[in-house]
Amino acid sequence: MMSKHPGTGSHTVTVFVFPGVRLLDVTGPIEVFTTANEFGGRYRVQIASQDGREVITSAGTRLGADVSVDEVQEPCDVLVIPGGPEWETLIKDDALLDVVRQLDENSRCTASVCTGAFLLAAAGLLNGRRATTHWRHAQELASRFPSVRVAPDAIFVQDGQMMTSAGVSAGIDLSLALVEDHYGAEVARSVAKDMVVFMQRPGGQSQFSVRSRAPHTHQQMLRRVLDSVAENPGANHTLTAMARRAGISVRHVTRLFYDEVGTTPARYVEQVRLEAAQGLLETGDDPMPVVARRTGFGSPESLRRAFVRHLGVTPGAFRATFRTAGRGREGSGVHVGAVVVEARVDDEELSAA
Amino acid sequence: MMSKHPGTGSHTVTVFVFPGVRLLDVTGPIEVFTTANEFGGRYRVQIASQDGREVITSAGTRLGADVSVDEVQEPCDVLVIPGGPEWETLIKDDALLDVVRQLDENSRCTASVCTGAFLLAAAGLLNGRRATTHWRHAQELASRFPSVRVAPDAIFVQDGQMMTSAGVSAGIDLSLALVEDHYGAEVARSVAKDMVVFMQRPGGQSQFSVRSRAPHTHQQMLRRVLDSVAENPGANHTLTAMARRAGISVRHVTRLFYDEVGTTPARYVEQVRLEAAQGLLETGDDPMPVVARRTGFGSPESLRRAFVRHLGVTPGAFRATFRTAGRGREGSGVHVGAVVVEARVDDEELSAA
Repeated sequence: MMSKHPGTGSHTVTVFVFPGVRLLDVTGPIEVFTTANEFGGRYRVQIASQDGREVITSAGTRLGADVSVDEVQEPCDVLVIPGGPEWETLIKDDALLDVVRQLDENSRCTASVCTGAFLLAAAGLLNGRRATTHWRHAQELASRFPSVRVAPDAIFVQDGQMMTSAGVSAGIDLSLALVEDHYGAEVARSVAKDMVVFMQRPGGQSQFSVRSRAPHTHQQMLRRVLDSVAENPGANHTLTAMARRAGISVRHVTRLFYDEVGTTPARYVEQVRLEAAQGLLETGDDPMPVVARRTGFGSPESLRRAFVRHLGVTPGAFRATFRTAGRGREGSGVHVGAVVVEARVDDEELSAA
Repeated sequence: MMSKHPGTGSHTVTVFVFPGVRLLDVTGPIEVFTTANEFGGRYRVQIASQDGREVITSAGTRLGADVSVDEVQEPCDVLVIPGGPEWETLIKDDALLDVVRQLDENSRCTASVCTGAFLLAAAGLLNGRRATTHWRHAQELASRFPSVRVAPDAIFVQDGQMMTSAGVSAGIDLSLALVEDHYGAEVARSVAKDMVVFMQRPGGQSQFSVRSRAPHTHQQMLRRVLDSVAENPGANHTLTAMARRAGISVRHVTRLFYDEVGTTPARYVEQVRLEAAQGLLETGDDPMPVVARRTGFGSPESLRRAFVRHLGVTPGAFRATFRTAGRGREGSGVHVGAVVVEARVDDEELSAA
């Protein structure tokens, strides 16, 4: 990759912080790089703020800076740009964007965490590149910056010397990948085990998304169709059934979906069913055949295929990772369970129109 | 649980920091509690240091404190005691242990992260309780503090008003469980999704452990047996075969194992085979039948059963989470894959003799 000294040698990491920066976006990567030093890595990590003073993070904690941006002299190997809840204000701050550009020019690899991707995009650094961000903001990134090819499901994306990662804790995943590039898989694995995090987590970011709301529409007929799907995802929602229910032609239903919802009726129904199934798995104890039936998938096998295709994990995996902690903690505080076989999901790009 | 105001109301969280505290032990829980405030939680989080001044963490970053320990007036709902690499020095620091006791007395729930469990144990707060800590130190905790019942595989353990969690990032898991107790599963789930972490991760802490070395022994005969197992875990290592190889009786082999290794020959062999299989799955591409054969499990089904019993995950799950990131990143930067079915593992207690 962009490694200057593969295998050995030291690497400098500069983490840029600003008022309101998200705490874990900063400290996750720093923990990874400094822990790597226990296992053969040689990272020199510095925190840079605009004026060299400490900043107050979005969590309210005060975080010291080691240098001001102007004191960052030599080129660094990795520049980390974290995010923050006030990203909409930040991307209007021209001085801040200038700093980001200046730091990026002086770094061999620039990596954003979470909404840090918005800073990179606003600074023009992601033009024509593939990138990701927090699942909640992926659509927003794509529509604000049409030249960025957003991969909404990725935990992290590398495109040339630019790397972007998903929400918050994904900065840890991205940093582990960098450690692997710099010092090899064994060092990276030691860091992951020391921090008690996975080298690769099962599934993409989509499994973390909140269920979508029924889209707004002023078309009364379409509204009725959408509501009937949302109210009872397990019912018969073939194109013919929906058309009959709305009292319009199949072709008209299809066109309404295309114009107002931006997808086909079949895809919309599958999305609603998927989200209903996610809800049942998160909070209920129904066996898989019941979940499949109640959500309109019919069989556990269809349910399984839809989950793997869209979320990268099976319904069982999803249930195991998102059901509530309380249940598992009964008695021992130890709750475990997972059997994993391999599956593969094509990543989907949000093509911003 | 210990919740004063279940469902609503505010909760105060005090995080105790000291020089050399591990960065993510502190910031993981703080990120969870402050993020909960975005979803209906009402946490007031403060960082307390002994003298109220900032501390330098083990990562070298400067972290501000909000109050000194003496300024912590009112009782808090949650006290967080993080760990640090210098825990051996810390537990000899009587003044520090006094502070821990004083803070604990004033809190409704005390929760340690990682080696923070050593501080609680040294302060006498875990006597007669079940607890966990970083997998690397679980045995050490059990032998130094025989009255603590150590659960080495747990991600976190709750025993009365004391909670302890595994290494580093497990502080996030523990904090999510507290959020669930205080404000319900929906709030906790929102926090997990916002931070892009799992509500429950697949498998216990054992899957993160490094492979054990062959135990030291001065018994030449036993040494030969142990070496032959380590050199070729896939060979025939029945009790009879081992006895013949060492030129001693079956009963003698059994007694040597019991006295010198502290377990039965069969358990020892299974452990070595398990660790050999972990190694092959982490770094190789062998199909499961080959892994099973090379490591002496014979069939994929036996391999699977051993993994689920000891690690809480299947071999496929283990491979998916611990193989190197580089491989999966090719092309797209998106690497996913997991199918999970449920399994359950009894937690094992290290009974400190």
